[in-house]
Amino acid sequence: MTRSEFSHSGIYAAALTPLNADLSPDEDALVRHGRWLLDNGCDGLAVLGTTGEANSFSVSERMSMIEAMVEGGVPVSSLMPGTGCCSISDTVELTRHALGLGVTGALMLPPFYYKGVSDDGLFAAYAQVIDRIDDDRLRLYLYHFPQMSSVPLSYDLIARLIEAYPGIIAGMKDSSGEFTNMSGASERFPGFAVFSGSDEFLLDILNAGGAGCITAVSNIASSLATRVLRAWRDGEADNATDLQEKLTTVRETVCAYPLSAALKEIMARHSGDGEWRNIRPPLQALDDAGAADLLARLADTGFSLPALNGGVR
Amino acid sequence: MTRSEFSHSGIYAAALTPLNADLSPDEDALVRHGRWLLDNGCDGLAVLGTTGEANSFSVSERMSMIEAMVEGGVPVSSLMPGTGCCSISDTVELTRHALGLGVTGALMLPPFYYKGVSDDGLFAAYAQVIDRIDDDRLRLYLYHFPQMSSVPLSYDLIARLIEAYPGIIAGMKDSSGEFTNMSGASERFPGFAVFSGSDEFLLDILNAGGAGCITAVSNIASSLATRVLRAWRDGEADNATDLQEKLTTVRETVCAYPLSAALKEIMARHSGDGEWRNIRPPLQALDDAGAADLLARLADTGFSLPALNGGVR
Repeated sequence: MTRSEFSHSGIYAAALTPLNADLSPDEDALVRHGRWLLDNGCDGLAVLGTTGEANSFSVSERMSMIEAMVEGGVPVSSLMPGTGCCSISDTVELTRHALGLGVTGALMLPPFYYKGVSDDGLFAAYAQVIDRIDDDRLRLYLYHFPQMSSVPLSYDLIARLIEAYPGIIAGMKDSSGEFTNMSGASERFPGFAVFSGSDEFLLDILNAGGAGCITAVSNIASSLATRVLRAWRDGEADNATDLQEKLTTVRETVCAYPLSAALKEIMARHSGDGEWRNIRPPLQALDDAGAADLLARLADTGFSLPALNGGVR
Repeated sequence: MTRSEFSHSGIYAAALTPLNADLSPDEDALVRHGRWLLDNGCDGLAVLGTTGEANSFSVSERMSMIEAMVEGGVPVSSLMPGTGCCSISDTVELTRHALGLGVTGALMLPPFYYKGVSDDGLFAAYAQVIDRIDDDRLRLYLYHFPQMSSVPLSYDLIARLIEAYPGIIAGMKDSSGEFTNMSGASERFPGFAVFSGSDEFLLDILNAGGAGCITAVSNIASSLATRVLRAWRDGEADNATDLQEKLTTVRETVCAYPLSAALKEIMARHSGDGEWRNIRPPLQALDDAGAADLLARLADTGFSLPALNGGVR
């Protein structure tokens, strides 16, 4: 299988979730942010992932946000919402709801409360979810992020899932930061679309047969990531490497700060809309000194964000 | 303040959640199990905690179970449901719902998806929850279980919460297994009811001014734990020590296996009802060999469970 045959591929933003002052989701702002990202090179939107504070919202808040995006004209083919919860009941409800809207891609954390669980237990959890959903349209992307979930997904588990649910188990977002885990999965499982969760491995995972990247920094730098992808696709190896270096520099600058807060700060400055800083506890907005420091460092990289189309809010 | 002035104290079972074959909660069995525990010495029921697979259920499933217990005649004063979720929205909904039923005690995990969050962020999370609930009847017990939540609760955080919400911040369940953390909190925060999450520290935490224990093993051994408490209360130091040793032996035997599964296995054998083995993934029932091994070892301790009152199911 070639890259273009993956169900989903390219540059996906792990989209931020704009909030009102009372910390309720600002759905209009979310739709505008999503459209802006798609206008600036994103192939898709991994809404309600780690960066988008998914687990800080209730199931009904999450469903309402996906509905708002679809009703707001965001193409369903571009959406890959995070739907993996601690509870099978919640994961099934969220994923079924997305499918009901025509959204077939879902990025799915394993149940992440219990630690040290067996592969048998994780297989049973994913199997329960897939069996209960019972919809062949589903394209399930496993979400491997051991540093946050504390529940790693092994190759053995992936192999069992692919064997049991061919077609449905479509790929993985690997946020482990371990490139050998990403490239190994891409080599070992033909047709399994591996997305790097880290911008710095975009070019490397493309060269290793991967699908692309799903990253937080794509909230601000998708235009740069897209240029890496295009240069690689066009066989411009040196250009791709230069662009990747620029992207990596932006990533390293932003990732020196708490990530969702840093990106919301950057969007607040770029849009002039301070509401962008709203964030749900336990995450916290950057303090003034941190914000000034971040912005100064980002300016030093020479990177600038694309213009907003009519204002993000 | 003396121990008897705590809002909640004594022996609390971190109650198991019986399930039907389709993994839906068996509410009738839950009520019967709760009554049996109260009949056999439990002062209260910490339903829907880690042992009770709380995070494996949806918010609506959790609310329905609490309603069933109250409607089933379990005294509201004996209930201390787990209500802490990753999402403030969910935590508020669950806790408000319990208060609406007259259940004032709540055992509250911090939001546990994001790791490495600051005390400021955790304070803001608990503060948002308490402010939104806005009910002076609430008695909030912090749930410190770093091995499972990966989000420890520091003394500095506890001190800030007690200062901001006196009366409401009522105590802590400490499942860290570090006795100095429990005893230190009990000494440092007068009137703050510290429950050991581990049976082996019951006598020690009582001697250190703590409130008692909230444990998984109390699902089977509450009668023994109660005898430790009574002997301690009556000044029978040697007897209390002997009983504590027996309780510790039972605990060590059971805790050599995955805990919820082991306790469900024991209840299945005791009741003759194999449905007790049903458990939600990612947790898994013991295999036959493990089950036989556990039962043999438990028999070797000489421990036996109290008779069931009319059958647990």
